[in-house]
Amino acid sequence: MKLSQPIYEGKAKRIYAIPEESNQWLIEYKDSLTAFNALKKGSFDDKGAINRDITSLIFRYLKKNQVNSHWVKDLEDRFSVVEKVSIIPLEVVVRNTLAGSTAKKLGIEEGLVLQQPLVEFYYKKDELADPFVSDDQILMMSIASAKEIQELKTQALQINALLKKLFLKMNVVLVDFKIEFGKTTAGQILLADEITPDCCRLWDVNTQEKMDKDRFRRDLGNVRESYVEVLNRLKKALQEDL
Amino acid sequence: MKLSQPIYEGKAKRIYAIPEESNQWLIEYKDSLTAFNALKKGSFDDKGAINRDITSLIFRYLKKNQVNSHWVKDLEDRFSVVEKVSIIPLEVVVRNTLAGSTAKKLGIEEGLVLQQPLVEFYYKKDELADPFVSDDQILMMSIASAKEIQELKTQALQINALLKKLFLKMNVVLVDFKIEFGKTTAGQILLADEITPDCCRLWDVNTQEKMDKDRFRRDLGNVRESYVEVLNRLKKALQEDL
Repeated sequence: MKLSQPIYEGKAKRIYAIPEESNQWLIEYKDSLTAFNALKKGSFDDKGAINRDITSLIFRYLKKNQVNSHWVKDLEDRFSVVEKVSIIPLEVVVRNTLAGSTAKKLGIEEGLVLQQPLVEFYYKKDELADPFVSDDQILMMSIASAKEIQELKTQALQINALLKKLFLKMNVVLVDFKIEFGKTTAGQILLADEITPDCCRLWDVNTQEKMDKDRFRRDLGNVRESYVEVLNRLKKALQEDL
Repeated sequence: MKLSQPIYEGKAKRIYAIPEESNQWLIEYKDSLTAFNALKKGSFDDKGAINRDITSLIFRYLKKNQVNSHWVKDLEDRFSVVEKVSIIPLEVVVRNTLAGSTAKKLGIEEGLVLQQPLVEFYYKKDELADPFVSDDQILMMSIASAKEIQELKTQALQINALLKKLFLKMNVVLVDFKIEFGKTTAGQILLADEITPDCCRLWDVNTQEKMDKDRFRRDLGNVRESYVEVLNRLKKALQEDL
């Protein structure tokens, strides 16, 4: 594929304009892996292609269940075509089990299963290390309206219910995940970005082994093997569905 | 006054049981001054008595304007009798102008005047350094119900409107303040704790000089003088009212 200069390069992806398609972008998944706001860096072979496959399978599964995303189609190995959206600068986190920063902040032991899923927002801004924000702070900064915040929560909880079901079929506990949303030119709020082990906490149902980026964050080894395992279980779980 | 052992000692106050009054407590305002979760410590003469006077004047002013608090009456210099409440472990912060931790966290310059007051909650727990929490996290931890959170916000905004008016009469900008609420045995939510320059940001209207604990936090000098000045202006502003 002949590529122009990316119009945006993030920690895990590059985005390119598509000359003949003004409403679409090309996304390239990179092999790099970062943690702690990019203070820790790594990579592994095919990581981009594996994450592209995981995301596309999940976005297709969601679409089949009436949740739309920016995903349009896949091109060769690490590329997807997506609908052009303006990303809402919020990381939307859904937690089913407490782990990571919130468990630490609130002094609660990792592993507490929540009675109801918890939705959290983080203001997406690298130079501020993505601070946790409340609904009222989002309103104050005019990042989203009250109606849009409600829409983000509703969509996040719908996606969580579908993903929990899917991962359970894969013998995986969906502990938490981070998603991002964009706005189309028509003003529609659409799931965007990616859904991969980079931004989910996934624990094996039987062994409780971590199968996600925490293996890299916490130096647990077998990072690539875990990502491949997630992809294989996903393919198997969805083979009849898609 | 003959005092028994305090039943609780905080950074700025001690609380005593009153043997003959099972529904009331005695509060003693201490001379100590702390900042940055008590990493910085200081004190000045009469600070306790000055803060007792400021709090009691404000609580009487609020009561006259239909906002009740735990305050019952004053005793000698640094003591007040208050209604016994069970403190809700939330620091309720109202901001009219951005300053302090939120300005820093969101990368906004100190001094931005907000179009609407912003209410924030911090989980009151010294060993966690009072982390900022969202409504959903408060619900998750069962600290307050959705109805109680709404009640806290409504009361906080009412108190803010009354205080803004009062401070403006004193030629002081009410930048932000922190309050705490308690629950009576009957389940009523009642303003408690204190309202003093320890937990407000107060800027002189004309000179923009800080008249609050930031003088101590940021080593600006004249800490005692500022607290006395706030008390004197408060007495003058309320001399016809109370």
